[in-house]
Amino acid sequence: MSLTVVGSIAYDAVEAPAGRRERMLGGAATHFSLAASFFDEVRVVGPVGDDFDEASWDTLCTRGVITDDVERVAGGKTFFWSGVYSENLNERETLETDLNVFEHFEPKLSDAARACDVLFLANIQPDLQFQVREMCGEARFVAMDSMDLWINIARESLEKTIRSVDCLILNDEEIGMLTGRASTLEAAEELLDWGPSSVVAKQGKYGAQLYTAEGQFSLPAFPLKDVVDPTGAGDTFAGGFVGCVAAAGGEATHDVLVNAMAYGTALASFNVQAFGTERMPQLTQPEIEERVETLERITRFEHHPVALRA
Amino acid sequence: MSLTVVGSIAYDAVEAPAGRRERMLGGAATHFSLAASFFDEVRVVGPVGDDFDEASWDTLCTRGVITDDVERVAGGKTFFWSGVYSENLNERETLETDLNVFEHFEPKLSDAARACDVLFLANIQPDLQFQVREMCGEARFVAMDSMDLWINIARESLEKTIRSVDCLILNDEEIGMLTGRASTLEAAEELLDWGPSSVVAKQGKYGAQLYTAEGQFSLPAFPLKDVVDPTGAGDTFAGGFVGCVAAAGGEATHDVLVNAMAYGTALASFNVQAFGTERMPQLTQPEIEERVETLERITRFEHHPVALRA
Repeated sequence: MSLTVVGSIAYDAVEAPAGRRERMLGGAATHFSLAASFFDEVRVVGPVGDDFDEASWDTLCTRGVITDDVERVAGGKTFFWSGVYSENLNERETLETDLNVFEHFEPKLSDAARACDVLFLANIQPDLQFQVREMCGEARFVAMDSMDLWINIARESLEKTIRSVDCLILNDEEIGMLTGRASTLEAAEELLDWGPSSVVAKQGKYGAQLYTAEGQFSLPAFPLKDVVDPTGAGDTFAGGFVGCVAAAGGEATHDVLVNAMAYGTALASFNVQAFGTERMPQLTQPEIEERVETLERITRFEHHPVALRA
Repeated sequence: MSLTVVGSIAYDAVEAPAGRRERMLGGAATHFSLAASFFDEVRVVGPVGDDFDEASWDTLCTRGVITDDVERVAGGKTFFWSGVYSENLNERETLETDLNVFEHFEPKLSDAARACDVLFLANIQPDLQFQVREMCGEARFVAMDSMDLWINIARESLEKTIRSVDCLILNDEEIGMLTGRASTLEAAEELLDWGPSSVVAKQGKYGAQLYTAEGQFSLPAFPLKDVVDPTGAGDTFAGGFVGCVAAAGGEATHDVLVNAMAYGTALASFNVQAFGTERMPQLTQPEIEERVETLERITRFEHHPVALRA
């Protein structure tokens, strides 16, 4: 299998109760790639500027991520985002978003990138996502993310793109915004009618829900004592989730997706225990398997009927 | 087994997207009793005023709830609460809280109420909870709820009361406030050190988590399309949860509590599908069992190890 991801490669500045970083490697495609690289060969597509340094290239290449399709824009600066997290990490305020080389980004995919079996469209302008989706006509499984901004200013393009993919991964608030429905169940059923055969509602520290024609699956987040930096958690989840589907040959059955939810959740839990991408290059397979096993254990429930009173 | 609950019996006025009710039966002890009555004989303790009408007595007596310990305060008015829910039901604003007969409430328990095997201390002033807990020295399982108000203005009393019970049931934000810890896992472990052998972190529409010495268990809320009125969901959950422990002879093993989490969750899901207590008197045992089975199905996860790349 081969897996292509298109999205942002960025430098982030983050301030959190555990500390701060002035400039660290980030971006949706970066976080996705590092997680997905545990499952398949990943090809990352996105622009960087002249300021993209050697250490960042090294990190991006973790576990053989292929960077041939990373476009180095001469005279340009890498996308930059900065934000501050609240004391309990429940809220974050964006201080700065400098699109830089992302402002005029037009995805150019090599033949190898186009020939992917599995494709992830990270959160970028939905018309660009659609263009990439069209380029990758052979993909057996296409998943996408998006954000409130595009729901507000590019709804039509977003809807068209959603109708063209197999799996929509979105925060549950955004799913509510997109459909105008307060019930995530009802919203997900509507989105399944649009075309995707699966919808994932991300719920941040509460976990995530999967909806397919076969039903629903809910998984809590992995319980942690030391959340350091939630930046990139959603993209890391997507990397583990989509990577797991790629490892299953792109065959996105309900059972494969359920297992993928657990791997995505486990990977995201490691990501948030350090700033930016700091944890991922050190992460080992046994550590991942251990957390997936823990997820199985803490959600295991067998119904023991109780004698109820009439 | 016999189960005693002490707490508020109230009239509520609620405004929600689905409609409004000017005056409906509510209160923590009411919601708890109706749910717990599926599992055991329930004795409810709390004050009402002269205005407490026949229809309310009838509802309160559902499935044989014993109201002998409900104190009718001559010349008094029943506790009244009114609130408005936001469009997506995620927020609610309290418009009015009239303590009325609750202002000078001093719990007086009959011998039968004191002789309970299982006791639930619904959210009232923690010194009163402690008094009741002392009266019920024979109880095999004592659980309690509380709220942010008491964390802020009666922390010492609250801590003393928590140290005297077997199970603390609290919203996860309140658990954070109480312990000053952002991690619910870390907070729950600290609370287990205080004395309770189990802690339940309620997470509203996201579900609930159980912590014991044996580990953790997470359960999502039951997925619904039609949430009408979330008022009383937490107390209904507690009624199903504590009722289930009573049905197990007050033997609160980790496995019993896991099963109890599912019954509490199922009962709460019915409660929120109608205003106030409207759904509960019509509820049947097969309906409850069906939802617990659904909870088992939508959380079932078996770890299938994936060949991870080094």
